Amino acid sequence: MRPFNVGLLGFGTVGAAFAALLEERAGEIARFNGRAPTLSGVLTRTRGDFAEILAGADLIVEVMGGIEPAREYLLAAMHAGKDVVSANKQLLSQHGEELFETARARGVKLRFEAAVAGTVPVVRVLEESLSATPIERIHGIVNGTTNFILTEMAGGSTYAEALAEAQRSGYAEADPSDDVSGRDAAAKMAILARLAFGSPVHLDDVPYEGIEHLHSDDLEYARELGLGLKLIGTAERRHGGLSVRVHPAFLYSGHPLASISGSFNAVTVESETITEITLSGPGAGGRQTASAVLGDVVSVMTGGARPPAPPLAIPLIEDVESAFYLHLDVADEPGVLASVTQVLGEHDVSIKSVVQRGMGEHARLVMVTHPVLESSLRAAIERVGDFDFVRSPPRTIRVIEEEFV
Amino acid sequence: MRPFNVGLLGFGTVGAAFAALLEERAGEIARFNGRAPTLSGVLTRTRGDFAEILAGADLIVEVMGGIEPAREYLLAAMHAGKDVVSANKQLLSQHGEELFETARARGVKLRFEAAVAGTVPVVRVLEESLSATPIERIHGIVNGTTNFILTEMAGGSTYAEALAEAQRSGYAEADPSDDVSGRDAAAKMAILARLAFGSPVHLDDVPYEGIEHLHSDDLEYARELGLGLKLIGTAERRHGGLSVRVHPAFLYSGHPLASISGSFNAVTVESETITEITLSGPGAGGRQTASAVLGDVVSVMTGGARPPAPPLAIPLIEDVESAFYLHLDVADEPGVLASVTQVLGEHDVSIKSVVQRGMGEHARLVMVTHPVLESSLRAAIERVGDFDFVRSPPRTIRVIEEEFV
Repeated sequence: MRPFNVGLLGFGTVGAAFAALLEERAGEIARFNGRAPTLSGVLTRTRGDFAEILAGADLIVEVMGGIEPAREYLLAAMHAGKDVVSANKQLLSQHGEELFETARARGVKLRFEAAVAGTVPVVRVLEESLSATPIERIHGIVNGTTNFILTEMAGGSTYAEALAEAQRSGYAEADPSDDVSGRDAAAKMAILARLAFGSPVHLDDVPYEGIEHLHSDDLEYARELGLGLKLIGTAERRHGGLSVRVHPAFLYSGHPLASISGSFNAVTVESETITEITLSGPGAGGRQTASAVLGDVVSVMTGGARPPAPPLAIPLIEDVESAFYLHLDVADEPGVLASVTQVLGEHDVSIKSVVQRGMGEHARLVMVTHPVLESSLRAAIERVGDFDFVRSPPRTIRVIEEEFV
Repeated sequence: MRPFNVGLLGFGTVGAAFAALLEERAGEIARFNGRAPTLSGVLTRTRGDFAEILAGADLIVEVMGGIEPAREYLLAAMHAGKDVVSANKQLLSQHGEELFETARARGVKLRFEAAVAGTVPVVRVLEESLSATPIERIHGIVNGTTNFILTEMAGGSTYAEALAEAQRSGYAEADPSDDVSGRDAAAKMAILARLAFGSPVHLDDVPYEGIEHLHSDDLEYARELGLGLKLIGTAERRHGGLSVRVHPAFLYSGHPLASISGSFNAVTVESETITEITLSGPGAGGRQTASAVLGDVVSVMTGGARPPAPPLAIPLIEDVESAFYLHLDVADEPGVLASVTQVLGEHDVSIKSVVQRGMGEHARLVMVTHPVLESSLRAAIERVGDFDFVRSPPRTIRVIEEEFV
């Protein structure tokens, strides 16, 4: 039988690992599917011709990254009736609807498992296993770089030391801003939200907060209380709308994401029907990502996998309730706690626990609030920050408490 | 468009939950797939006619359990060219090859996610996401009843109390022997091994050991050392062959399965290519199982999912190396430890750690061995048990140590 021709766009770390893995596994794949996948053409910045590669391919794999020309190539491939596999989270989180619509219109397959959580097969599970399940919430650790850094910090490193270690180990790039700012995680949560809830979510719609401002203090506090501190992406139904966001959060120790360490990724899907399921695995690595890409290629060969249905329109909710941890450096003088709690109370911020520790002339005030609208908390904090006795800008981190749908 | 007719065989807990869920979700499924699935017939012991249900169905869902007549019905349905979905682990672990062969020969689909790990989508992930990945090992907690009982025992209950609580909570049946003996888990591991390694494994080929003989002592020891004690199913490549087995095991605390509590199931898949991925979720419950069955129905409607490839023949290895925990009640007298360690040494059992504790006239000797062939350990233990100073039959439990492929 003639081979199944794969045209590869991009030959960086993932592309090269994919080419090697494809060759290793072609025989075994042929045993299952009848045809052996073969690399029929490779496009890089310096070699290959797209039109020629397209003409000779049964399927196009795009691992170039970036918006253009990746978008143009994928659209052209689908218009030519070719199935496509992409690992491109930027593209899918910003031009997903255009790609999905084209795939539906042309009747071709579009797979993108590797764009979301490395080897963790969350795209397939959402699109297939859970396609009949009404999902309430997704929590995800979808960026391996930041989880690596936070794991190092939990072990006692400072942010700078942990970042340097991540760069040395190949888990962080020379310019880590896309990862540590939370923007990479926001792109992945936009894609997951679209799959889970059927409503288009653009990267620009996802508010995100990174880990650059976290202190060793915060990790120490987490350790004392047996909490995990993670960069968490959330997509959930709220009051008839949808909230999608990324921020650091304290997790109670029994949360399935609290024990995910190093560069691993993990996603928890909650639903009344299934309670919750959790998927975890390596979030990075060329060979691991290549394995997810190859899984998509096999999926196309097997004949499953249609593109997401036309979008619903669920309004995005920006201001949602969360519990907050609140850290204040204050002068150690009478009346401080009373002043702070009065301001918080005026903004409907209700305190669940408070710990005050003297440190010479300073005191550290650590509070955990009951769930409160983010806008109320921000307004309260702004006023608290204006007190003369507050010595440095107040710090806040969200807290994810035990709750099941 | 005409509905997609589903004939349902069996209307117990899962069948009734499936019928309800199908009705709830039909509209949403139609939005994705164009056709709404509808219950076109139900067969129970007292109502319905199989031939009539078969004639009117696009797909047959079997949730009757047991071997006959489930086997006969599924074969008849496939011979009639109908796709089938089954939740029947007994049947698949004993007549899997006959069913797979029929599905391949007739070109129909056969899905069975709910037969293995409840809502945990491990069948789909093995068959699709990981179909191009050379798998080295699977560890699974695939029986929710025993994991519930062990979680209760870790909290201080005796085995009898924990079992009674499981029965009260609906997690254990009046006759729990299939669960607590490890036989239910063995059936599921036989199915997983077939999917992961391509070689047929019959339930009768899987040695299993249950949890009935575990003492509160063992759980206390696990707690002291920060280990988990779980009923673990293992399927792995060993020396060119395949080992599939079920037994209680101590897990180091960082193992992804160590933190799985209550009636949850979880499966860890290890491979050089992907390191490891872990999937977890509820292992029991009518509505949860029904959700997995409905996921399979949608998968059939979507057009993916072919039956497993024709079987390879990999020899099964029965005698494999494991580390062991060894518990001896001995008289507290001189020379005991020397006699025990000499016998162990003669059988190539090498000791990693040993703790001896006096308890009046008795002493408790707890050892952990380095990995050793099970046959060597059994031979050594038999001789140790013959010493006059040994006061009760020696107890052994396997230990799963930190290791990555």
